[in-house]
Amino acid sequence: MDLRGENLIGSETLPGGGEPWQAVEAASGRSIAPGFTSATPDQVERACALAHEALDAYRETDLETRAAFLERVADEIGALGDALIERCMAESGLPRPRLEGERGRTVGQLRMFAAVVRDGGFLEARVDPALPERKPLPRPDLRLRTIAVGPVAVFGASNFPLAFSVAGGDTASALAAGCPVVAKAHPAHPGTSELVGRAVAKAVAASGLPAGVFSLLLDAGIEVGQALVADPRIAAVGFTGSRGGGTALMKIAAERSVPIPVYAEMSSINPVVLFPAALAARGAEIGKAFVAALTLGSGQFCTNPGLILAVEGKGLDAFLAGASEALAGVAAQTMLTPGIHRAYCAGVAALEGNSAVETLARGKAGGDNQGQPTLFATTAGAFLSDPHLAEEVFGAASLVVRCRDAGEIRAVLERLEGQLTAALHIDDGDHAAARELLPLLERKVGRILVNGFGTGVEVGHAMVHGGPYPATSDGRTTSVGSLAIQRFLRPVCYQDLPDALLPAALRQDNPLGVPRRVDGKLGG
Amino acid sequence: MDLRGENLIGSETLPGGGEPWQAVEAASGRSIAPGFTSATPDQVERACALAHEALDAYRETDLETRAAFLERVADEIGALGDALIERCMAESGLPRPRLEGERGRTVGQLRMFAAVVRDGGFLEARVDPALPERKPLPRPDLRLRTIAVGPVAVFGASNFPLAFSVAGGDTASALAAGCPVVAKAHPAHPGTSELVGRAVAKAVAASGLPAGVFSLLLDAGIEVGQALVADPRIAAVGFTGSRGGGTALMKIAAERSVPIPVYAEMSSINPVVLFPAALAARGAEIGKAFVAALTLGSGQFCTNPGLILAVEGKGLDAFLAGASEALAGVAAQTMLTPGIHRAYCAGVAALEGNSAVETLARGKAGGDNQGQPTLFATTAGAFLSDPHLAEEVFGAASLVVRCRDAGEIRAVLERLEGQLTAALHIDDGDHAAARELLPLLERKVGRILVNGFGTGVEVGHAMVHGGPYPATSDGRTTSVGSLAIQRFLRPVCYQDLPDALLPAALRQDNPLGVPRRVDGKLGG
Repeated sequence: MDLRGENLIGSETLPGGGEPWQAVEAASGRSIAPGFTSATPDQVERACALAHEALDAYRETDLETRAAFLERVADEIGALGDALIERCMAESGLPRPRLEGERGRTVGQLRMFAAVVRDGGFLEARVDPALPERKPLPRPDLRLRTIAVGPVAVFGASNFPLAFSVAGGDTASALAAGCPVVAKAHPAHPGTSELVGRAVAKAVAASGLPAGVFSLLLDAGIEVGQALVADPRIAAVGFTGSRGGGTALMKIAAERSVPIPVYAEMSSINPVVLFPAALAARGAEIGKAFVAALTLGSGQFCTNPGLILAVEGKGLDAFLAGASEALAGVAAQTMLTPGIHRAYCAGVAALEGNSAVETLARGKAGGDNQGQPTLFATTAGAFLSDPHLAEEVFGAASLVVRCRDAGEIRAVLERLEGQLTAALHIDDGDHAAARELLPLLERKVGRILVNGFGTGVEVGHAMVHGGPYPATSDGRTTSVGSLAIQRFLRPVCYQDLPDALLPAALRQDNPLGVPRRVDGKLGG
Repeated sequence: MDLRGENLIGSETLPGGGEPWQAVEAASGRSIAPGFTSATPDQVERACALAHEALDAYRETDLETRAAFLERVADEIGALGDALIERCMAESGLPRPRLEGERGRTVGQLRMFAAVVRDGGFLEARVDPALPERKPLPRPDLRLRTIAVGPVAVFGASNFPLAFSVAGGDTASALAAGCPVVAKAHPAHPGTSELVGRAVAKAVAASGLPAGVFSLLLDAGIEVGQALVADPRIAAVGFTGSRGGGTALMKIAAERSVPIPVYAEMSSINPVVLFPAALAARGAEIGKAFVAALTLGSGQFCTNPGLILAVEGKGLDAFLAGASEALAGVAAQTMLTPGIHRAYCAGVAALEGNSAVETLARGKAGGDNQGQPTLFATTAGAFLSDPHLAEEVFGAASLVVRCRDAGEIRAVLERLEGQLTAALHIDDGDHAAARELLPLLERKVGRILVNGFGTGVEVGHAMVHGGPYPATSDGRTTSVGSLAIQRFLRPVCYQDLPDALLPAALRQDNPLGVPRRVDGKLGG
């Protein structure tokens, strides 16, 4: 499939305005064909208008039609074949196995949401039957279901060019909820975005849905995204990226005449706490496993372990020795973009230049645009007195905080901002100490894990990829897993409607067979 | 019980700072004893600190303890007896039967949330068991439950001095979710607030809970509320009141270094659409029922029917004749506060002074601080060209919009901002026309009702008292009914935790017997 470098506005493929710009091959820094043109203000407007026009029809598609459409999107992405992987490798610098895995995850995610739609539990259907004889007042017949909030703006993320991009988790959950999507391609992988976008558009057409269900906008800058979030027809925003980018969108959304929710997944350093018994039993082994997690994908994960907390002693020494040895053998890897590489190098340099920070170990040096993994150490006292040490360095850098006792570990954790994950390494002898820390961790993070690292976010029903601000803009939600659909739904109550006027999910004989609460009890 | 006019800061009753101020008897405008003193900045700070200290213990109370506590709050409010009703009558001007009914609703609401807590469904428990043999990667054990978001600031509303005030729906749902509450009393009913606040504090002590689970702050102005929303320990806000007040709190919350959700229920004119067959069959009867709903409680309900839409003709004439005749016999009633009465009179005067508006009928003139119900009419053309005609006049005023055809009704509805409710009056012959309007109404409102009016908000499982902005600040939620608990919860995922470290709701043998989804399927 030849790339056209154009915007997808509903069923139309349209050149944008201004000078064409090109994607950059991550490994070489060279520009690669074709030229892409950014969406014009009129095209942003047109995409939003089409999405609004499509809303009422699309949100009332029957569950089977909508589920089959999501599966068709998955099929069409699969049908792109190796062309998708190759373009994505060039644009992102990520290796083939990683991208094949990510494609599997993207397609699997769409299929999971198809199952969620067929299940119908997301409708939260509730029925409180009328009680005409109730005293002092009769009770009316009350029924509740959720509906789609409206068209959703989705921003592709640079670090998951498939799974968190044009047809990633935000798009899949919004489409599952019944929301048309206007996606904004990330300029780091416009060709990948176009290929995936055309696959989605093909599925829309093949499923007989209104063309406005999906549009894809291109932009090398930020104007298109700003206009999109400000458009009065957009009802919610999904974003994965930097804290600066996420908070800028939050501001635009809050200042609209009708404010809308922004679901931004922004930054996290993902504390890892190493407990004494575990360190004593297998400090070096944990160190090696840590390095594998730290350096995977050049550390370009939101859930990368950026902060290690432990009490000083032989166990921590063993961990550091194991980690340092392992790190020395790790090759530098190409980073996603020259800009991300520059930011990584600046973050590493800042830590190197901090007199309270020691450089413990490095991976192998690399070429242009390759990130050299680095492990730093500091003390709890220094960490507590310098807020910069808690800032995320996006890439394979991590900071070990040597603590004098469990109280210092607690003090460091209490100081942290909201995080996506926290990991505990424990043995049986650590259970009591771990239990004491859990309430604090629950307040700080979205996912707590034991004897592992946060990288590798399972797409399932019990996953939370979220957490208190600034890990995300809205800690009540997750952007991964089936619960993500709730972000794009709102409840509507129907009082005393004749059965013929009720939505199918709420009719007396429950023709869709969806799970319902009757008088508050499940299974009615 | 003698009123002390003091703030409740956890277990302590403390005089605030500054000059004492008094409540105003609504009917007479006279000040009534005792003097109340506003919370000092230190007291606001102290209440928030105590709430934070109480959080971890309170949110992990077992379900039975928490449910019994909510029931104890209900019992203690009941035990206040007639003293509560009498004080509340004096402060609010509302009649005894209304306040006795409202007390029943308040107590019933607390008991409903006790049942919700015992049910455990609000925990959203999910289990995705480990799949160690899965290829290419094993799946970890993943479990999810919701936890309390943190301390909640609740603002008492003037128009429901019991059911939407100190121990109203926001407080009941926040406490049910496991969130400590810092309530801000409405200055229109400080004595009522103190009585109810002391009942809650008594239940906290009797239940052996940390004192910080509940505090009550007084203020004649807005400084205490502003400081409360800005306090870093407050995690969410519940508010029912004016659009100006709600948006001011939204602004403070959005500008915090950690933004928090504000659940503000603000303004609504609650369109009522009268369909031709219903009007032809019983226009005058609907007119009489409308006047009863309009003038109930002097029209001081968020769900008051403020806008009537119908196509001109004999049916509408019959409705207007019935309504006008009924309205002429309605006595003016005392309004909640002199300020609300002044605003009502100003709103009515603005409509009277609008050359495109006709005054159709009035109720009987009243004395000081009594609102005279008024019915106005205009045309769809005038309504569409003057945005002021869509503004809420809080009280018993309503505007009939004469439309030339169904298209004009649709155009008026499409123009409206978000609303709490929309009511349709229909007969069988109107079904097709009503069906066409439903998608538009679903986008605009939180509750759609047939052959009734929005006043009388049932507290149940299928209720939605919410709606798109500006009806509320967050249309994804409801402030009435069991679903309101979701506002104060967020999900946490536990990955590979040993059973002994898991919260009880997620342990392998489900010791609490809460509803769970296992691999996405209910009933595991």
